[in-house]
Amino acid sequence: MSTEPKLVTAEKPRGFADKLGEEAGAEERIVTAVGRVFEKWGFDRLETPAIEYTGALGKFLPDTDRPNEGVFSFQDDERWLSLRYDLTAPLARFAAENRDALPKPFRRWQTGPVWRNEKPGPGRFRQFVQCDADTVGSDSPAADAEIVAMAGEALEAIGVSREGYQFKINSRRILNGVLLGVGAADDKARLTVMRAIDKLDRVGVDGVAALLGTGRKDESGDFTPGANLDPASVKKVIDFVTLPTDSRAAVLSGLERIVGDNDEGKAGLKELAGIDAVLSALGVGDARARIDPSVVRGLEYYTGAVYEAELTATVQDESGRLVRFGSVGGGGRYDDLIARFTGERVPATGFSIGVSRLIAAQRALGLGGAHGADPLVIVLAMDRERMGDYFAIAGDLRAGGVRAEVYLGGAGMKAQLKYADKRDARIAVIQGGDELAKGVVTLKDLKLGAEIASKLGEDREAYAKAREQVQREVPRAEVVAAVQQMLAR
Amino acid sequence: MSTEPKLVTAEKPRGFADKLGEEAGAEERIVTAVGRVFEKWGFDRLETPAIEYTGALGKFLPDTDRPNEGVFSFQDDERWLSLRYDLTAPLARFAAENRDALPKPFRRWQTGPVWRNEKPGPGRFRQFVQCDADTVGSDSPAADAEIVAMAGEALEAIGVSREGYQFKINSRRILNGVLLGVGAADDKARLTVMRAIDKLDRVGVDGVAALLGTGRKDESGDFTPGANLDPASVKKVIDFVTLPTDSRAAVLSGLERIVGDNDEGKAGLKELAGIDAVLSALGVGDARARIDPSVVRGLEYYTGAVYEAELTATVQDESGRLVRFGSVGGGGRYDDLIARFTGERVPATGFSIGVSRLIAAQRALGLGGAHGADPLVIVLAMDRERMGDYFAIAGDLRAGGVRAEVYLGGAGMKAQLKYADKRDARIAVIQGGDELAKGVVTLKDLKLGAEIASKLGEDREAYAKAREQVQREVPRAEVVAAVQQMLAR
Repeated sequence: MSTEPKLVTAEKPRGFADKLGEEAGAEERIVTAVGRVFEKWGFDRLETPAIEYTGALGKFLPDTDRPNEGVFSFQDDERWLSLRYDLTAPLARFAAENRDALPKPFRRWQTGPVWRNEKPGPGRFRQFVQCDADTVGSDSPAADAEIVAMAGEALEAIGVSREGYQFKINSRRILNGVLLGVGAADDKARLTVMRAIDKLDRVGVDGVAALLGTGRKDESGDFTPGANLDPASVKKVIDFVTLPTDSRAAVLSGLERIVGDNDEGKAGLKELAGIDAVLSALGVGDARARIDPSVVRGLEYYTGAVYEAELTATVQDESGRLVRFGSVGGGGRYDDLIARFTGERVPATGFSIGVSRLIAAQRALGLGGAHGADPLVIVLAMDRERMGDYFAIAGDLRAGGVRAEVYLGGAGMKAQLKYADKRDARIAVIQGGDELAKGVVTLKDLKLGAEIASKLGEDREAYAKAREQVQREVPRAEVVAAVQQMLAR
Repeated sequence: MSTEPKLVTAEKPRGFADKLGEEAGAEERIVTAVGRVFEKWGFDRLETPAIEYTGALGKFLPDTDRPNEGVFSFQDDERWLSLRYDLTAPLARFAAENRDALPKPFRRWQTGPVWRNEKPGPGRFRQFVQCDADTVGSDSPAADAEIVAMAGEALEAIGVSREGYQFKINSRRILNGVLLGVGAADDKARLTVMRAIDKLDRVGVDGVAALLGTGRKDESGDFTPGANLDPASVKKVIDFVTLPTDSRAAVLSGLERIVGDNDEGKAGLKELAGIDAVLSALGVGDARARIDPSVVRGLEYYTGAVYEAELTATVQDESGRLVRFGSVGGGGRYDDLIARFTGERVPATGFSIGVSRLIAAQRALGLGGAHGADPLVIVLAMDRERMGDYFAIAGDLRAGGVRAEVYLGGAGMKAQLKYADKRDARIAVIQGGDELAKGVVTLKDLKLGAEIASKLGEDREAYAKAREQVQREVPRAEVVAAVQQMLAR
């Protein structure tokens, strides 16, 4: 050797995650269960590439209005390519590119990683999995209602109880109607009002009223300028967003009063009534799906119905207060997204499930559907010249349905038991020279051993007795049955 | 409206694929079945991000020796990032980054898309799915044997019969020993000889002999320069690569003669003998796993055992000749890859399953495991004011286990039946005003209808009779049972 090559630092990029074992399969298990529900409702699975032409992705990245901000992009053959930041933009591209070949309407579901070129922070990742269902080419409110009902069934499929979730539904059009009625006609004024409404949960009714009027000073003294609506208009918006939401029928008649003769508002009302009718036909009552006029949703491209799914179970927040688990997905109607390609308005509506939120919910709420790996059995390698024997034992165990592996390193017995511990193994199978001569193997119940060891302390007699329980000698021919029995205990 | 915005062209990037329906789930179904086998053998699932620091990926892209050629790269915060081109380089990074925390040895399996920035061509994609199993930290030939046996079980799990596949195993070290013995000591000479050997299938024994000697002129008159070995050395290499491979024991004793006293060759021989012993212990006989000295494999980073899986069934090639289906995966030992990070040699061995090759095999050979979607039932929307009724029917069907959807567009009956045809639906459920008044629905067996229509021609009487079979009126309350019955036929 002449000069040593310089070592490379082994580090994953900032904002990205490695996942091993149980954690690695969690997203897929959720998506598989959810996808099965979507397929049953006639949604076809779609896969599109991770990479799209940058121009095709458009400027619709959530929470930003500058084009391509937050996207990973690179040049190829003089054209710019980007990693997709959601699954809706690729769907719009696909639906436009294949519009002649696709059935109309076209229902599809899709899952896969998406990427955001944002500053990483705690719990904020630059790659995560989305799972979406969308219907393209139907302007029927039935399409929205269907997705809400189906998304509820999907939540149940991953272990959420029927009482454990709630959808909140609203319409952008009814909101627009109200905004027109109070004189907030242009985009900027509408956005200010919508942002104020969106803060209802955090700042309360008085806070929203201040933000709709002259502005609001928060506890720290910071001032947020208001939308400058006159007091009558502020009252109208507050009445709108605080309608009691217990009954869809009651909200609808309340909205009818508020909307009055405004065309846009009336169209929104008709939309919500259509959604209500189909939800009722599907047996989705008021408890599972409310009409809630305070729901805004951040994405600017929504043009009609918007909907959000919440888990109602409570968890402790950072300060120890009990709060609702909250949002696990949402969506809405975006009738203008495909027109970027086709020049014609193509109605579409869709829902995105928050996969990582659901994994968090499964952990926090102890939901079913979290699949534990089968218990592991490790065959120790007592003599490296006899690896064949150990593999034959492991092969027999696997053929008997047991997850089993042979220790493959070069270390001694003690280190091998430490390895078994690190692997969280249930049983060690040991066949040294003595056992071989007798035609037996020793089975060691590692879990029971750990339990007993933690309780025994210094009592030597009890230890000797416990040792008998933990360790057993069985004939080689009976190893599979004996292991199965030990695992069943 | 003032100026129309310019339309964006809807096109997927060159070299990438969209997949819809059956095709979209194919990779996942294969990977799920394969992963289940890997887990049973004690391999833990790992997920790493799609993006790595460019430096961490190294220069080991298959079939190229220039750094980072063929990789999608982009700059972020002054550092270069790249999309992974395989799953081995990220494993090396992960194993090095977490070496203190991981069990030793460490077995992992992993699946996911990888990207190659290569010129797209027919059947050559720039994004595809890999599925790998690797063992890091064991230099035991048992680790190689285990992966071969496990990969065989994985092939069986996706429908390949035990007689339908064959592994070919060789060792780079034994090859190196032979090459040292014939005076091809430096890397360049070794590479020329290995490339010659790798062409055995295509150019035959005489062709390889020419390439080992003074060079070879092919049918088109093109000349490939040779390795310039002397005739005795050419003979030695040819003897080596043409050893009859029917019996592992016979190959091993043949190799012993050829290798003689060469240390590197002897080490390779010991390696192959160790693999043979564990394969035999696992019941993997000569028919399923051969030792074949002609196996070279392209990747330069292999340092010991190399192995390839082939399907033995024959298919027609482009010119109509029957040929073996061929390779569906391969791997080997790469003891130097992790040392780039750690400075210490970390033995490792692994296998990559050719997922898209296996999908092709499932289609070409009619293997099991190809999962057809459940038959679809479409409820027609005869009256847009009665969507609730149609959704209630579809909901009942789904509750009865039937995949069902409501037509959501605005078209008339004829277009709806055309839509059902495009969706490949089995049954249409129709409830117009007449049916509603009678409390019934009409079930139309679309598949049977198409079959009969294609046979009837102009026979009106037969047509009327067939129509009775195709169409049935049933009470609304009995629709689920009647559909289930129709589907079962």
